[in-house]
Amino acid sequence: MQALWLQDQTLSLRQIPQPELRPGEALVRVTRAGICNTDLELLAGYYPYDGVLGHEFVGRVEEGPAELLGQRVVGEINAVCGSCRFCRAGIPTHCADRSVLGIVRHDGAFAQFLRLPAVNLHTVPDSVSDDVATFTEPLAAALEIQEQVPIGAGQRVLVVGTGKLGQLIARSLRLTGCDLVALGRREQSLELLRTQAITTITSDELEDRSFDIAVECTGNPAGFELARRALVPRGTLLMKSTYHGQLTLDAAAVVVDELTLVGSRCGPFVPALERLASREVVVEDLIEATYDLADILEAFEHAARPGALKVLVSPN
Amino acid sequence: MQALWLQDQTLSLRQIPQPELRPGEALVRVTRAGICNTDLELLAGYYPYDGVLGHEFVGRVEEGPAELLGQRVVGEINAVCGSCRFCRAGIPTHCADRSVLGIVRHDGAFAQFLRLPAVNLHTVPDSVSDDVATFTEPLAAALEIQEQVPIGAGQRVLVVGTGKLGQLIARSLRLTGCDLVALGRREQSLELLRTQAITTITSDELEDRSFDIAVECTGNPAGFELARRALVPRGTLLMKSTYHGQLTLDAAAVVVDELTLVGSRCGPFVPALERLASREVVVEDLIEATYDLADILEAFEHAARPGALKVLVSPN
Repeated sequence: MQALWLQDQTLSLRQIPQPELRPGEALVRVTRAGICNTDLELLAGYYPYDGVLGHEFVGRVEEGPAELLGQRVVGEINAVCGSCRFCRAGIPTHCADRSVLGIVRHDGAFAQFLRLPAVNLHTVPDSVSDDVATFTEPLAAALEIQEQVPIGAGQRVLVVGTGKLGQLIARSLRLTGCDLVALGRREQSLELLRTQAITTITSDELEDRSFDIAVECTGNPAGFELARRALVPRGTLLMKSTYHGQLTLDAAAVVVDELTLVGSRCGPFVPALERLASREVVVEDLIEATYDLADILEAFEHAARPGALKVLVSPN
Repeated sequence: MQALWLQDQTLSLRQIPQPELRPGEALVRVTRAGICNTDLELLAGYYPYDGVLGHEFVGRVEEGPAELLGQRVVGEINAVCGSCRFCRAGIPTHCADRSVLGIVRHDGAFAQFLRLPAVNLHTVPDSVSDDVATFTEPLAAALEIQEQVPIGAGQRVLVVGTGKLGQLIARSLRLTGCDLVALGRREQSLELLRTQAITTITSDELEDRSFDIAVECTGNPAGFELARRALVPRGTLLMKSTYHGQLTLDAAAVVVDELTLVGSRCGPFVPALERLASREVVVEDLIEATYDLADILEAFEHAARPGALKVLVSPN
């Protein structure tokens, strides 16, 4: 099958064997996959990974349990052992022996086929298109914030960064009834949020110490500093970005203001699919282009442009 | 009156006027005061401050409300406005216009007299000696941890750092029934904790990903990194040190492991006094020496020695 291979920080489109299933796994023919900033960071060598990239996908089950055969599915990306102390403690996304689709020891979704444990797969309602279903994984990551920190009416919440992930985070937080503001640099991204009835500001308009919760989605230290400054004493800063290694922060300010910093990663698929199916979160306006798998190198160049929103790939 | 004056990172013993009371304040004749690491950091210029140092004290009220006259008292160090949005929100220790005894725009306790709002003062039970009462402020800071994060039986808790503050934190956490371990470098400090029935280890003996909660009290990046490594996924790291400015951390690890970092500062005086009065927390073994105010420069040299525990000063 055709697949996008990453090795030594170089991408190449290759013919590789179709995945061989392990017990409990299903084979999925990928119909659509999305390029995430994590893919660009893996390409830049921020984390060690050789293999097929891609972890945001929708596809159809071709082999596996009878009840899934022929179903259109999305899939949770952590393939876990089920028996380590973290799995037993009920936090399988932190499995000590996990592989992660397209990220850690598990060939990913920029290929004609992928394999995942059948238990990871969720059937997609007919009302959700392939394009939209591809957003399930990043929207789940956005919803993880609400699993970690109670957010609701009366709270002032700032989203710092209005790129791909910031858009989904702001759109999902709007549903909580909180007093929401999104801070970004690019007028085009801000306009998309205003169309969703979300208030936007630029960094010049930020009032220090005025938000209860700040969500950092820029992945750069300047964004982190804006988020920190925005918080009232005892405020909460959610770190939602896959940072490139080290971050230098004003620790004295964190201690003196008694801030809480919360790292946040993968989230729950079921509510993400529900939000997409109900159209409480819409995503179509975030799609900039869709490329055939044969043109995926071009798709990656597109996705790497500053300010690029979602670029999709059609492997089949 | 005699007082220890800090200016341009230089200490000097000076004759200065006795404090002039403002409305609502009381005048306290200081009988004992403790040297804290924050004092050493102010001396090193980590924060800007000119004036009389000292914020851990016990003394007797000489002027002020009738019901306090002649009382032996300790005092909360934040003098607050009572009307800003943070005071009104019930977090007066974060008052936007606060002065802080011996730290921010408020002459401190290394003097024969100090002034504080009467509302900040707490009467010391007769059973608590002056030496012991001087620990009320740092023990309150230690207890702040339990105000911020629920800690109890079944949780594995690591205290990183067994200096002055780490000792009080470990001794107060032992009372929660948690599964407590203190990590330090100096055998003398570790032995003091073992005498208090607290398990101790050195960094060589630390098992990664084995604690639910880690409390960082070293104030250096190596201690922070040990605390981070010690945590299980979704663990909580309490930042209890007054760090010197910037801290560089592995932000990717915080995000991937979904850690929570909590800055922690001043705490509640009433439970601190209760723990000292009941002798649930004992502190006498932490006192290395007591100096007269006339010898306070020598006291500061003593307190700055590596591994020094509490050095007290007698201003009267």
